Amino acid sequence: MDSLADFRNRFVHSPHDDLIYLDGNSLGRQPAAVGQVIEQVVNREWGERLIRGWNEGWLDISGSVGDLIGELLGARSGEVILAENTSACLYKAAVAALRSQPEKSNVLTDSENFPSDIQILRSACDSAGFHHKVTVVDTSSASDPTGALLAAVDDSTALISLSHVSYKAGWRWNLKEINEAAAKVDALTLWDFSHSVGAVPIDVQSDGVTLAVGCTYKYLNGGPGAPAFIYLRSDQDHLANPITGWFGTAEPFSFDASSPPASGIQRFLTGTPHVVSAALIRPGVEMLLEAGMDRVYEKSVGLSQRFIELCDQRLSPLGFEVRSPRDPQRRGSHVAVFHPDAQAVGLALINEKSVIPDFRPPDLLRFGFAPLYTSFTDVDSTVDRIVELVEDGGVDRWRNETPLVP
Amino acid sequence: MDSLADFRNRFVHSPHDDLIYLDGNSLGRQPAAVGQVIEQVVNREWGERLIRGWNEGWLDISGSVGDLIGELLGARSGEVILAENTSACLYKAAVAALRSQPEKSNVLTDSENFPSDIQILRSACDSAGFHHKVTVVDTSSASDPTGALLAAVDDSTALISLSHVSYKAGWRWNLKEINEAAAKVDALTLWDFSHSVGAVPIDVQSDGVTLAVGCTYKYLNGGPGAPAFIYLRSDQDHLANPITGWFGTAEPFSFDASSPPASGIQRFLTGTPHVVSAALIRPGVEMLLEAGMDRVYEKSVGLSQRFIELCDQRLSPLGFEVRSPRDPQRRGSHVAVFHPDAQAVGLALINEKSVIPDFRPPDLLRFGFAPLYTSFTDVDSTVDRIVELVEDGGVDRWRNETPLVP
Repeated sequence: MDSLADFRNRFVHSPHDDLIYLDGNSLGRQPAAVGQVIEQVVNREWGERLIRGWNEGWLDISGSVGDLIGELLGARSGEVILAENTSACLYKAAVAALRSQPEKSNVLTDSENFPSDIQILRSACDSAGFHHKVTVVDTSSASDPTGALLAAVDDSTALISLSHVSYKAGWRWNLKEINEAAAKVDALTLWDFSHSVGAVPIDVQSDGVTLAVGCTYKYLNGGPGAPAFIYLRSDQDHLANPITGWFGTAEPFSFDASSPPASGIQRFLTGTPHVVSAALIRPGVEMLLEAGMDRVYEKSVGLSQRFIELCDQRLSPLGFEVRSPRDPQRRGSHVAVFHPDAQAVGLALINEKSVIPDFRPPDLLRFGFAPLYTSFTDVDSTVDRIVELVEDGGVDRWRNETPLVP
Repeated sequence: MDSLADFRNRFVHSPHDDLIYLDGNSLGRQPAAVGQVIEQVVNREWGERLIRGWNEGWLDISGSVGDLIGELLGARSGEVILAENTSACLYKAAVAALRSQPEKSNVLTDSENFPSDIQILRSACDSAGFHHKVTVVDTSSASDPTGALLAAVDDSTALISLSHVSYKAGWRWNLKEINEAAAKVDALTLWDFSHSVGAVPIDVQSDGVTLAVGCTYKYLNGGPGAPAFIYLRSDQDHLANPITGWFGTAEPFSFDASSPPASGIQRFLTGTPHVVSAALIRPGVEMLLEAGMDRVYEKSVGLSQRFIELCDQRLSPLGFEVRSPRDPQRRGSHVAVFHPDAQAVGLALINEKSVIPDFRPPDLLRFGFAPLYTSFTDVDSTVDRIVELVEDGGVDRWRNETPLVP
């Protein structure tokens, strides 16, 4: 029944525990093929080829891995590139967008956007050089977040920047609807695909996306702190990278400080590409392409719907409450569940039951369903273990613990 | 005689060639201990501990590896942090510096600075929000670069930003002299230590350095595209990171978009640290600390002086000419050598003689002497092989080749 079941064995699983890992929305599991990449890039290329590696594949690694990610997004070759981290990429993209909108004043985002994104948008306003300001629309308890957001769009809107799937509740915006509303008032949109890429369908062409960034260590399984990516539609020639370093110029190896920006997406590079960590991104993306996003998404919906049903049946009586949208079209691949002692429940699950969800303050647990390595049995067992834990009094044992990273 | 000779075996050497690697000024050799780091960080931590890694060492990795680099610089704990790449770090540091100097207009650098640095300084002027402009002092043929630079310093100088050791000729500025001259007119200085850290002595405290960035994949042997570092003296509280993302805030895991900046150097972080590539930096830095910068520098001078002497004796008659400063106090750990067919000589050396220098257009070869893995015999053999090559007509065989990366 589960046509993706075999992918599970192409990820690393610890021999030391019977772990159910439901935090792939935060840090994805390691593809087994990472070992071969290390052998190639670290042992052979860095170890033996040394500087010659630049002429043997490193030079274009940001673009070649970017193109693979682009395939997941429905982008054309040359529209996606790896760079730094999501926040730095968002800054570059946002400043570029705002400098192309000098006569409009307003940057719209919503309260459920990732906090770093909101902070970065403010930084971008400070650097763009005009008088842009960020307006944060409160969608935290909106019954219709889209309506709430669109009510704030007007002729002063320079840019709308949102997380395609929100990090907490997993709310998913309709890309096309927002992009079309923005276009009507000549506003740009800038999407953060961190919680959606590799989990839900994205087709930048039919969805009308012009500018986006995203993270590679969640559903793309690129490893902790893997570089992020920028997508820029190839017709957006007027957008300029505000941090112009040598790798973003037409001829970095001319060593000429007057070298003009590169022509394509490459112009959004800044410094030397993170070769080793870029290479580690490839195996996870290749597996997603092999599986096909249609099947991945179908399983994502299946897993999360099953989890929601079991929550309603078995966990609601124990004080839990699903806080993610129930319509799968309005949701990503993780499900947020309220519990008054959510942090203690999470710690107990991790430390006593070998289930890893994560906790987002003040009272939400997130359960992420990465379709390539999560089974339907994992979903059932998770709910079983939560019930056991609560009935056993396990929550009380972890009430006073507060780890550095929740 | 060479008290550092044993370190050579603590680096990876290919079994396939008899390589003399003189490009450690561009990409350092791989420490043998990298294999253990991979085993720990990739196999154990990412592979098995997964998200728990954040509570088991990842959270502070930018600072803990930064502190190790800080020891090389004579910095205090908490003054150095890893982030992105050198160009992005330079941008953050430069914008921070310029925003603290709103009433001064001029950013001084010199023509021998790395081109990306000059471009980044221009980007920083565009983003700082005032009316700063970059002035590039031409020191390319100055007999007294310091005099030429200082002649351009005046009350309008907001910032002086230079590469401590220049990437081409290997010219080394006197940190203290420039910092003192800047202080006299209330200008800030921002140093790029990319070509000096791990090769020549730096003592940020006695040298009066307030702000610096640097690369970790040259003499620190951190691997291709390893993250860069920022040094900020701990009393510079007024300097603010212009790209404020969650990892630069006081409480990233409060998920609060109004979290204020972190108090120390951590505020210059932006997005998620590059955990894997950060961890790979540690072994190289630890070896330098074990060797001690005094011994490293003594050997650096010994190697480069010997090379210069042999060039004068044996290569000058063949059309080569040393173009680096002859005073070791004015030089880094690489030596630039002119030849009218420098690129062809370099390619012939790499492909026929198993010696790797590098080429910088239009007519310079660079020979880098990384003291931990370069022997005095390497220096002698290099000169022997160059002589053989030229006498054998090898240069002619490579005259029409132009690799992507020179």
